[in-house]
Amino acid sequence: MASEDSKINSLVDAASEGDRRSIARLLTLVERGGISAEIVAEATHPLAGKSHVIGITGAPGAGKSTLTAYLARDLAESDHKPAVLAVDPSSPLTGGAILGDRVRMEEASGAGAFIRSMATRGHAGGLALAVPGMVRVFDAFGFDPIIIETVGVGQVEVDVASAADTVVVVVTSGWGDAVQANKAGLLEIADLFVVNKADRPGAKDAKRDLELMIDLSQVTGQAVRRPEIIMTTATEGEGLDELQKAVSEHQQFLLQDDQISLRRSKRWKAEVSSRLEYLLLEISKNSIENIEENQSSPPNSVANELLKKLLNKDELH
Amino acid sequence: MASEDSKINSLVDAASEGDRRSIARLLTLVERGGISAEIVAEATHPLAGKSHVIGITGAPGAGKSTLTAYLARDLAESDHKPAVLAVDPSSPLTGGAILGDRVRMEEASGAGAFIRSMATRGHAGGLALAVPGMVRVFDAFGFDPIIIETVGVGQVEVDVASAADTVVVVVTSGWGDAVQANKAGLLEIADLFVVNKADRPGAKDAKRDLELMIDLSQVTGQAVRRPEIIMTTATEGEGLDELQKAVSEHQQFLLQDDQISLRRSKRWKAEVSSRLEYLLLEISKNSIENIEENQSSPPNSVANELLKKLLNKDELH
Repeated sequence: MASEDSKINSLVDAASEGDRRSIARLLTLVERGGISAEIVAEATHPLAGKSHVIGITGAPGAGKSTLTAYLARDLAESDHKPAVLAVDPSSPLTGGAILGDRVRMEEASGAGAFIRSMATRGHAGGLALAVPGMVRVFDAFGFDPIIIETVGVGQVEVDVASAADTVVVVVTSGWGDAVQANKAGLLEIADLFVVNKADRPGAKDAKRDLELMIDLSQVTGQAVRRPEIIMTTATEGEGLDELQKAVSEHQQFLLQDDQISLRRSKRWKAEVSSRLEYLLLEISKNSIENIEENQSSPPNSVANELLKKLLNKDELH
Repeated sequence: MASEDSKINSLVDAASEGDRRSIARLLTLVERGGISAEIVAEATHPLAGKSHVIGITGAPGAGKSTLTAYLARDLAESDHKPAVLAVDPSSPLTGGAILGDRVRMEEASGAGAFIRSMATRGHAGGLALAVPGMVRVFDAFGFDPIIIETVGVGQVEVDVASAADTVVVVVTSGWGDAVQANKAGLLEIADLFVVNKADRPGAKDAKRDLELMIDLSQVTGQAVRRPEIIMTTATEGEGLDELQKAVSEHQQFLLQDDQISLRRSKRWKAEVSSRLEYLLLEISKNSIENIEENQSSPPNSVANELLKKLLNKDELH
């Protein structure tokens, strides 16, 4: 493990001096999980904690990728050094994308943005472990803001985006049908709404519906900041300035009253939780593999017994 | 707890004498989870273990509900006493269904079948805990076969159906597009395939594709029984006899060489595993709630420390 430690330390040193290939390799180590991911987490943790994290989520086809591509390019071409983590099989980097998005991502990249995509499947320990670790790498090496783009369908994907400082939920007219089950969930996590494809019929109705839903949630919920609603036509680049302004205003809001600490504390806790769950599930798998089968015992009693043994490990020896 | 115990014992006694309201209440207790569900599991476990369990799964809109309704009716009207557990928001019992399915389910019910639907969301401990417990209740009180119908989209739903003795995967032409991600997974669990809507163009191609996929998997995989492919037009009742015959032949196959024991052993283990995972996740939640926050520590180290403490509980006192 010592050689792994020193290899990672060299990568961290090179990354600190701006070497992009080292950053890419650190991201890959985190994405793969396991002990190397842990070493990277410990090495980058003290360097991180300064960047603003933006989560962009919403139904498939809502235009998240186009919005992300524009936002990344505009940020990179002004004074920022953005990073994009696209957790989305249809992201501009993975084939399914519109030519324009690709071009804008390349422009963003040329101006200093770091673009990275990851598949949603097949992660050891899952997305919930890999994403915060990858964000930490970007953060540690000065990328700011960091944009996480996820498709808002599965619970894990929504959770991942909601662990951001500013959560942008992208909808279009008729969006409720596509994400029926998650509608309330998306409302709950949104700091900002974008009604994209604002040139289409129904866009104004979608905005009105959102206003109504927000009104209702504000009456019953805690007194939080009312989410702004931005109208965009991403393919035409319309509304993008307003979006960037709204994100920036939300960031200012977070800095008042130290709201940002609350978010980060929540995020820290969520990551501890994901990691502990992962470790416990590994233990569960191992202890199941070794049980003696006795089908005459009810499975729940057997599980209760296994748990007792696990929690008093000494008795096992 | 003593009064809960005796209440459940009375329900079990009444259910043993065929009282349907008691069976329904036991199912509800299992569905709700918690300590009552555990008591029911322990009370019904010794009575169960005789029934044949059929899992029916596939893409939304493939016609699973119609097939299930026909199968249940035909079984009930011959010498059987089937039960149906529809884990599917669009099942005939929950509004979205075709009138014909509803009628057939009522006929099945009239002939002695027990039909129960459950929502896929909001279960304490999840579907993976509730479904085996509910199947055990049906089994304990003489329902045979027990049909579990699930929509083959989420991993949990597929797992639930695959914990059956005979797994029927229902596809239609073009099915690959709808369940892209799960295609390989569905192939892996199928004991029988149904190509439904056999009157539509493309149905023969779908069958040919399946044959090819099965050929490929047989070459690489273990030597198991080659899944039969049944062509049905469920809405017309065509192919249903063939399906019933194929299910019955698969059941005979399982009884040879004691294949059935292997399945049940796998199922028993899977249930122990679900239960243990659930218990461990509860523990994880509790221990996270009580941690002292210290964001200067990397989340993974904190989780590792928490785990150590959990596994050596004595040190906590």
